[in-house]
Order: sequence, then structure tokens, then C-alpha cells
Amino acid sequence: MNHPALSLLGRRTQSPAISWLMHTALARPNLISLAAGFTDNETLPVTASRKLILSVLGSAKTGQPALQYGTTVGENNLRRLTAERLQLLDHTRARTHSAERTMITSGSQQLLYMTLEALCDPDDIVLVEDPTYFVFLSILQSRGIRARGIKLDRDGIDPAHLEAVLESLRKSGDLPRVKALYLVSYFQNPTGVTTSLKKKKKALAVLKKFEPAAGHTLYLLEDAAYRELRFAGDDVPSALTLPGARDRVIYTGTYSKPYAPGARMGFGILPEPVFTTVEYIKGNHDFGSANLLQQLMVAALASGVYDRHVRVVRKNYRRKAEATKKAMAKHFPAGVEVWEPAGGLYFWVRLPAGNPAGEKSKIFREALKQNVLYVPGELCYAEDPARPIPRNEMRISFGGASIKSIQTGIARLGQVLKSRGT
Amino acid sequence: MNHPALSLLGRRTQSPAISWLMHTALARPNLISLAAGFTDNETLPVTASRKLILSVLGSAKTGQPALQYGTTVGENNLRRLTAERLQLLDHTRARTHSAERTMITSGSQQLLYMTLEALCDPDDIVLVEDPTYFVFLSILQSRGIRARGIKLDRDGIDPAHLEAVLESLRKSGDLPRVKALYLVSYFQNPTGVTTSLKKKKKALAVLKKFEPAAGHTLYLLEDAAYRELRFAGDDVPSALTLPGARDRVIYTGTYSKPYAPGARMGFGILPEPVFTTVEYIKGNHDFGSANLLQQLMVAALASGVYDRHVRVVRKNYRRKAEATKKAMAKHFPAGVEVWEPAGGLYFWVRLPAGNPAGEKSKIFREALKQNVLYVPGELCYAEDPARPIPRNEMRISFGGASIKSIQTGIARLGQVLKSRGT
Repeated sequence: MNHPALSLLGRRTQSPAISWLMHTALARPNLISLAAGFTDNETLPVTASRKLILSVLGSAKTGQPALQYGTTVGENNLRRLTAERLQLLDHTRARTHSAERTMITSGSQQLLYMTLEALCDPDDIVLVEDPTYFVFLSILQSRGIRARGIKLDRDGIDPAHLEAVLESLRKSGDLPRVKALYLVSYFQNPTGVTTSLKKKKKALAVLKKFEPAAGHTLYLLEDAAYRELRFAGDDVPSALTLPGARDRVIYTGTYSKPYAPGARMGFGILPEPVFTTVEYIKGNHDFGSANLLQQLMVAALASGVYDRHVRVVRKNYRRKAEATKKAMAKHFPAGVEVWEPAGGLYFWVRLPAGNPAGEKSKIFREALKQNVLYVPGELCYAEDPARPIPRNEMRISFGGASIKSIQTGIARLGQVLKSRGT
Repeated sequence: MNHPALSLLGRRTQSPAISWLMHTALARPNLISLAAGFTDNETLPVTASRKLILSVLGSAKTGQPALQYGTTVGENNLRRLTAERLQLLDHTRARTHSAERTMITSGSQQLLYMTLEALCDPDDIVLVEDPTYFVFLSILQSRGIRARGIKLDRDGIDPAHLEAVLESLRKSGDLPRVKALYLVSYFQNPTGVTTSLKKKKKALAVLKKFEPAAGHTLYLLEDAAYRELRFAGDDVPSALTLPGARDRVIYTGTYSKPYAPGARMGFGILPEPVFTTVEYIKGNHDFGSANLLQQLMVAALASGVYDRHVRVVRKNYRRKAEATKKAMAKHFPAGVEVWEPAGGLYFWVRLPAGNPAGEKSKIFREALKQNVLYVPGELCYAEDPARPIPRNEMRISFGGASIKSIQTGIARLGQVLKSRGT
């Protein structure tokens, strides 16, 4: 938007793709949305949350603090329970996972935003998976931060490419502008890829290697938003468990996806000086996220309700992922490449070259006409002079739609692909 | 904080005074805090909120949407109810107050933050009341925005001074950098002053007059956070009711103070292009505030619970304000000037010249030793080359403490003042 009273940031900030997709989904009641990363309505913990809030607001003693202001970094019990849970997931008792280094935020999105505020000036560079989470790209774009894509394999980024990109930035004199590498390390949005521990280790080593030439810490920003949604295989330890992590890994997670987006609660583990800087920034944003929701999560975690709920959610997504996979096998033309996730909410679909599936493509528009919406893969790529943006990919979410809708949606999408000669 | 990996914003951002004050208050259980703008624990709507959430989460039909994602600008029912409430307060049905121009945010603080992101680059200028809300100053400082103070009288800013400041900025070539005038127009934080409608009208006219020379709209940012906490006299219409408001008044309000800070919910009415720009920015911050809290507020507003609660809160603050006034009259030395508010949470106290009451003063430290905390007035002044910062003022809040604590606290403070020879 251009207007003389707006700031540069204001002028740069564009309508986020997610708003448009969410709006389209909410506005067309008959639409089958394979786009939005909504969680499944049917598994939302309505009854459990009612009981938990009843207990929190059951007496003045617990109810009053829940309705009062708290502190900027979050409620101490929730910080402790969150740190303990991460210790459990990572099989460690290391101080890297301490409550003191844990911050509670309004979704992990807010933490990603504030972290970029703390680290990046306009023209700074953040390395991202190619493709990556499109709202993250939207923040970069809004803040005038440059993104550089790192090739993504089925087990995470290509460390050799990471090294080559950093080396080329060193040669061009841009290395001091690089601040972080952003990895959506579990069932990545959009590809469903999970980064192996080996790759995290290699990435961290490469970052460390380039730090002297950069003149400062190169952070590994690990976005673990989908970590708890695993339905196949074993959990991968986070980058926090690696040597050197204490000073350079920023870990973000959320209770929104595994529990309830409407009770929006995220968290992170941050090294200094990032922790304190983000704390100050959050002091200006909102001086602390809503206490009532924090107390709800404390009650959910401490009572075991959260654990039980996560098991239900995982089972549900496993069923839906299997149904999606089957439907794709049945309805998609041969030659369509499907990346199957071990958790999370997304399949990644690659059409044969020469079959554009982007926002302006005939495939996308024909699908919408058939009341089926997906996320065009092109939205998940940074503007990067080093390569053209691939146009032949689709992110298919099985999060929000019912199995029946998924089956219908995939069948219609298969029809569209076949009719377009894919 | 200085560290080579941090952004300029990260380095500029300081520990907000409010965090330190809140932390001090929470960490010292015997402290009588006349500092924090906490609302009164005793009047927090614990039972009412429990019942309302029971109804929201009482069925899958209403419970699932409450626990799901919503849209970035907020839940439509809450936007409508909020717009209707503002119409009622302002005795108008004007389109300026429409639901379409209303946005729901995580407290009005978040809206103030995003509005400044939308409007101001570093080195831009925002005019503020002298003194003003210190967290707002903290945002300006963090974002590298300059503040210029406008003299504050007992009924709002001095329009002649506003005009003189704008004229001087025009002469120095800085006028194009001026983006907004920020007024905390009801029971101002920190002085308790309410801006008369006449003054709002005059301010808007002055802004409009300088727009051609500025080259863009000069916004009136009206922060009405305390509006619903009136306990004496009649409500003053907002600046939204004035001619020309539709294009240049940004109005922010909150349900946190009158209802519950722990269910943090703010709102605003914004003109274009600010509305859409802030919507896009919020898409990057969090793509919408927690739906569960929005549904709680819908239920509170639609059921009449909110209205009833506001009456209880007002009555309670009236009693506390009267007790504070009496205690001051009894214990404070003659020569201490006290500004009595008609609502809100604050008295403004001015010591005779030559009696510093700032953070480093003997009075402040002696009071803290006696377990009494107030907000030093000096924290509420912008760095402004045009005048030195007054050091002899105190903001006394009667929001959080009980009447007994207020009486004890004021008595001790009076002792300190007397012993320091004030």
C-alpha cells in the first residue's frame, strides 16, 4: 500500500497470503479447504478445556491471578512446565532447557516476529529452507529483510549448499548482514520434511565456522511448531541438544497446533542477548500474554489432560494422513510426486515440470471453481536472484477438513489435474 | 543492550519501566504498590467469567470455533458489539463508528505498537502530552521515533502550544516527519487529566491546518484505555465524533482495564490506509488474537454481564479514589499539589520545586525502604530538547491496592515527604 503518511514498513507490508486463504475458506461454506493449516475442529478439546477453566476460575485464589496482569516473559509455572516438557522430549536435563531461558508468547508466530525485530535491520539476510513457511517470508518482506533459500532434501537442508551460499555471501561482502538460518524442523510447513539430527548438527557447525568472518553469532532459529504432531516414527532431538546450542540456537514451539489455536499460546527457548532483547520488545508489544490462557495451559499440562489430548490428536491426524495418501494414490495422475509426512498437517505435491499450479494457473482456478482450495507452492519461496520460483507445486493440508471432504477434494483435484493433461 | 548480532531496534530497546515496576511489585509481597496500573483483584469477574466460558464451551457448536483460528481483524460479533458500544458512548450512529473500521487486538497496547509500525520510520516525530504514558514513550524510543511534548493543562493539551510546536517544526523543515499527535484522553496516564471535547476539536483543527505543509495526514491517535472507568461527571465524546475525524482519528480502547487484564482484549477504530496496513502487520504478528478470549468478551457484552461489571468496578474505584484523596489531605504536607481525577486509576502529585521524587531521589528510595512504591513522574516525560524533565512529580495509583493499604501507603509516603522537609 502506498500513502505518504505510512512508514516504509507500512508500505512494504503486503496482504499476507494466509489472510487471503483463511478469508476464502471462512467465506465459502461449501469450499473444501486443503489449504489452511487449521487444526481439526472435531478434536478440539472443548469439554476438557471447560473443565480446566472451571478449576482455574473455581476460586478467587486461582481465578483472580488468572484474570490479572502477569509478567512480560510469562507465568513461571508455565515456563517451568514447558521447559520440563522440552527436557523430556529431548531426553536431557541440560541447563540449555531451563525455565529461565523459556519465554511464553501469543503463539510462536509472535516470537518469530519479535526475534526478527531483535536481530535484523532492513537489508539484513536470513537463510531459509527453499521452500519455507510463507508467513515467515511475509515478515521478512515487511521488515525489508532479504531471504536466501537453502536447498531442501527429504531429510532437511543440504549443508553443502548452506556452506556454498555463506561462502558466496562472504565473497560479496554480505556475510556480516546474515543473522540467522531459519529451519522449520519437524514436518515442515509446507513440505512435511523433518530435519534429521545429523543435518541440524552439520548446519550448526557450518554457521559456527562462518561466525568469525560474519563478526557475530549466526543463530539457528529452529521452529518446532509441528513437533508434537508426530504420527509415525520417533521424535528427533532438537538442535538445543547439540554442542554450541546454548549460545546460538533459538527454539520456538507452540501449544496452538497440538492443543487449541483459539487459546493461542506459544513459547521459546532463547540465548542471551536475544532473550532479554525480546523480553524488552514484548514489553512494548503487550507486556505479557493473556494470563487466563497461560493458566489454562498450566492446568492442561499439570493434569495430564494435554498429554492425553496430544495422543488423540496424533491418532486422528494419522487416520487423516492415511486417507489423504490413499486418495492421492487413487485419483492423482501417475507422474505426480507426493512427499508423505511422518507428522504435522501437510503433504507436498509436485506436478511434472511444465504444469503450473500457482495462484494464476488454470489448475488453481479450476480447482477453486470445483470448490477445492490448496496452497500454491510458489507462495512458499523467497524472492532469490539465484533461482526462478518453482510453480508446479502444491501444499495439501489434511488438518481442517474431514476425511470425507479430503476424499472428495482430492478426487476433484485429481480430475482437474487429469483434465489439464498433467 | 549492545551486541553485534542485534538490530538497531534491538539495541535501542530498553528495559521498560513498567516491567521493572511490575517485577518489583510482584517480587516483594509486603510492598504497598501505588505504582502499577493493576486493576483491583477483588473486583475481577471470576464467577461471571466462569459462567460465560461455561456457556461458550458448553457445546461443540460454540466451543469449537472458540478454540479454532479466526481472522486477523477479529471476530465479527465482537467487532459489531464493540462498534455499537462506542456508538452508544458517543451518542451517534455515524459510519465512523462502523464494525468494518473496528479491529480486535491483544490489548490496546498491541494496537498502539502496530499503529506506530504502520506510520513511523526512525527519526519520524510523534507529538505527545507532556507528560504521557511511559510505555508509549518506550515504544517510540525503541523504534527510534522522536517525541515532542505538548503542554498539558487540567483539561487537556494547550492548543496554542501544539500550534507553536508544529510551526517551529515547519520552520526547521521537520514537519514532514510529524505523523501523529497521541492523546490519552480520559483520566490520562499519568496525570488523571481528561481532555475536553473543545480541546480535541481544536487539536484536530490545528493538525488539519498543518497537513498541506506536512504533505500527508496528521493523525490524532486517541488512546481511550480508561474511558469506561469514570466515577464522577459525564462522559466526554471521543474525537471520532468531530468533523474530519473519519480520515484522521485513530481510536484505541480496551476491555482489559474495565473487565479483566488476564483476558487481554483491546480494540480500535482506524481510518484507511491505517486499518488495512495494521491488518497486514497483525497478519505477521499473530494473524488474530485468541478466539476464546474474544468469545468470552462477546458473551460478556451480549449478556449484559460486562455492563453490570463496569458499574461495580466504577463504584469500587470511586470509593478508593475518595479514600486516597482523604489520606493525602491528612498526611501530605501543605504545598503538595494533588490533581484529582474523575475516573481511571491515578492521582498526579506535584511536590514544591526543589524536591526531586525521581528514581534516584532520596524520597523514592526512602519510600521503597518503607515498602511503598509509586511511579516517578520523570518516567512519563519524553526526552525533549525544548525543556528539562521535571523531577518533582509522582503518579499515585489506587487501582491495585486495598483501601487499607492505600491509607497505610499514603501515610508512610506523607511521613517520608515530611521527613525530607518537603
